[in-house]
Amino acid sequence: MPYQINLERVQNDIYSLGRIGYNKEDRGIYRQGFTNEDMQGRHWLQDQFSSIGVDSYMDGAGNVIARYGAPNEKALVIGSHLDSVPCGGIFDGVLGVIAGLECIRVIKENNIALKHPIEVIATSEEEGRFGGMLGAQALTGNLTLDWLEKAKDPNGELLRDAMASCQLFYHQALEATKDPATLLGFLELHIEQGPVLEKEKKQIGVVEGISGVFKWLIKFIGKADHAGTAPMDLRSDAFMGVADFAHEISRIIDEDGTDKTRLTIGRVDLKPGYAHTVPGNAEFTLVGRDMSEDVMHALADSCRKVLSSIARKHGLMFEYDQMSWLGPKPCSNDMQDHLEKITKELGYSYIKMPSGAGHDAQFFSEITPTGLIFIPSVGGVSHAPDEWSHWHDVEKGCNVLLNAALELIT
Amino acid sequence: MPYQINLERVQNDIYSLGRIGYNKEDRGIYRQGFTNEDMQGRHWLQDQFSSIGVDSYMDGAGNVIARYGAPNEKALVIGSHLDSVPCGGIFDGVLGVIAGLECIRVIKENNIALKHPIEVIATSEEEGRFGGMLGAQALTGNLTLDWLEKAKDPNGELLRDAMASCQLFYHQALEATKDPATLLGFLELHIEQGPVLEKEKKQIGVVEGISGVFKWLIKFIGKADHAGTAPMDLRSDAFMGVADFAHEISRIIDEDGTDKTRLTIGRVDLKPGYAHTVPGNAEFTLVGRDMSEDVMHALADSCRKVLSSIARKHGLMFEYDQMSWLGPKPCSNDMQDHLEKITKELGYSYIKMPSGAGHDAQFFSEITPTGLIFIPSVGGVSHAPDEWSHWHDVEKGCNVLLNAALELIT
Repeated sequence: MPYQINLERVQNDIYSLGRIGYNKEDRGIYRQGFTNEDMQGRHWLQDQFSSIGVDSYMDGAGNVIARYGAPNEKALVIGSHLDSVPCGGIFDGVLGVIAGLECIRVIKENNIALKHPIEVIATSEEEGRFGGMLGAQALTGNLTLDWLEKAKDPNGELLRDAMASCQLFYHQALEATKDPATLLGFLELHIEQGPVLEKEKKQIGVVEGISGVFKWLIKFIGKADHAGTAPMDLRSDAFMGVADFAHEISRIIDEDGTDKTRLTIGRVDLKPGYAHTVPGNAEFTLVGRDMSEDVMHALADSCRKVLSSIARKHGLMFEYDQMSWLGPKPCSNDMQDHLEKITKELGYSYIKMPSGAGHDAQFFSEITPTGLIFIPSVGGVSHAPDEWSHWHDVEKGCNVLLNAALELIT
Repeated sequence: MPYQINLERVQNDIYSLGRIGYNKEDRGIYRQGFTNEDMQGRHWLQDQFSSIGVDSYMDGAGNVIARYGAPNEKALVIGSHLDSVPCGGIFDGVLGVIAGLECIRVIKENNIALKHPIEVIATSEEEGRFGGMLGAQALTGNLTLDWLEKAKDPNGELLRDAMASCQLFYHQALEATKDPATLLGFLELHIEQGPVLEKEKKQIGVVEGISGVFKWLIKFIGKADHAGTAPMDLRSDAFMGVADFAHEISRIIDEDGTDKTRLTIGRVDLKPGYAHTVPGNAEFTLVGRDMSEDVMHALADSCRKVLSSIARKHGLMFEYDQMSWLGPKPCSNDMQDHLEKITKELGYSYIKMPSGAGHDAQFFSEITPTGLIFIPSVGGVSHAPDEWSHWHDVEKGCNVLLNAALELIT
């Protein structure tokens, strides 16, 4: 008979955190990393651990860490983040932290004997106000002093200043690194933030890994002409280059991608951008994702070929900058198998799926066996006040996490 | 033996005007309607007429009008404009006015007897700083007091205030209207502002008319999604709607257009416009042109059909506003035949062609037989400091105008 979490407690906790940084006007959560509201959330969490007699502390990167049981053994870490995007929802990140807290509560109230300790971590600054995932990077040894000194938010505020205003000294973020030898594994429960589970009518997503992602900034340079005087066949219309490329995306995916491929044109800037002028310049972004780095390379090759053939066709010059290339971060096969087994035992429906969004888990996957569990997001909405997951799905996700953890640490 | 203009005089005049409003930094001409520089150009022109003993005056709309010969007969008007776009070139508009001045000089120095008077008009505010073609509208009775009182430039300056600063009282613009019964016809010489004559290696363009033009503001409304978490087949990507539509433009023209059709997407705004977000909203302009209003209607019907089928395919809502619809303004067949005949007699190569850009001629075409002559623009460039026409082409264009005029008025 598997253990069960107490949904009422989980609900209360999620709603309690949902009042910290809440904005009445737009119903959004404003608990961005290293703001007063973020710190208020972290202190609230420490109070919860205190109230059940579990010690916690904040490390130099702002991560809140609570540890319970078997002091000298390798720890199973359950983690997610407490910070939000501006005008975010109440589940993103919070769910995984509260689920970890609930796991400790169930273990304590059932006096379950642990062979390995459980460590619940509420990571800091996962949403990238300063352009990284500070907490998880600190814990997994992916920080440099140089970056810590230079990182700024979009308003130009320095990370180090924002940390100082939270009584954190940025140098000490470097001291937060965990020794992989002390870790048994890492588990994260998160909302899907996409429409797949809802569409497939599945209760649980067993995540295969975080998709790799590349971001290009592409420029087509043609010739701005009067839209009346320039005949169609004498134009070098930069926008027609973008449109023709966009039109080929589905073919590129059919030929070189997978059902996990995403290719997105999110931003297009035309110059001069007047109704009566043929666009002479077009600058646009292309973001590509897949779970296989080989597929990513094949997609990139194909995109380059198509871009250059379209440039020739329309008499355009073409250049692109690769702004970033991050390989996929697969979850460990053992953890995937383990989560599948637990989910089946609990009788929940599930699919295996990639995560197109980044998560704390992606940094832990490099140093310890890592598993990531998704529950459905209503309408696929996230990073918005309308973000919602049904409580019966929250309960199932927490139960998968609890029983998966227990089987590893008991 | 046809008469010849004096190219040296024409060159001197064009260069003289090209020093008024010249900006050293960008080499552009800044002689926008109802600025000090515009007025300086008009007074310079009046001085030129004075110096050859021809009276001129400025009407209530700022048009400079000089009349010569046969006072009581119908007048042949030769006109174009003296104002420029910001950072414009030295030929646009100026060529047609100086060509008119040169015609009077040739008539006077050859003591040519006239049956009809010639009237040279330098129209005001053709470039639309205030959103119209004020001078030509005033002369042809296409103004309302309401518009005169409300028209503003892009910086919010009222037309009436700009006119007042030039000692013009906007009410009097209404008094500038010509009685069509006093007119024999209207002739305009202008640079092509497009690449067709150069590409076709022709010296003269006999213009069939000003293309009709419609302008639509189109919106596709889909759903903004995380570019990582939203699978390709579950998206409502507003930009893919724009791209698919753009891709169909050449087919729409093949099926429903002519070789004179132009369809242009000049501006595209995506929201939210982030690289990592599927665009939920796309707003873009479509400008369509043709010489036949029936063809314009067929193009518009076809665009509507394609837009709505693409909207269905991508799960988008679609709406459009027709911002403007102006029918074609054909030049009179008699004038076209006349200009062809003169051009042939002079031994110049020519083609008949539409004008995709607007010109003063379009308003005159509604009240009097109107002809429009183009000369080649190097590289099709206009409205820019690099605007250029070869002097040997300028000479040919002026000679066509001179001899076409003389045959009508002698």
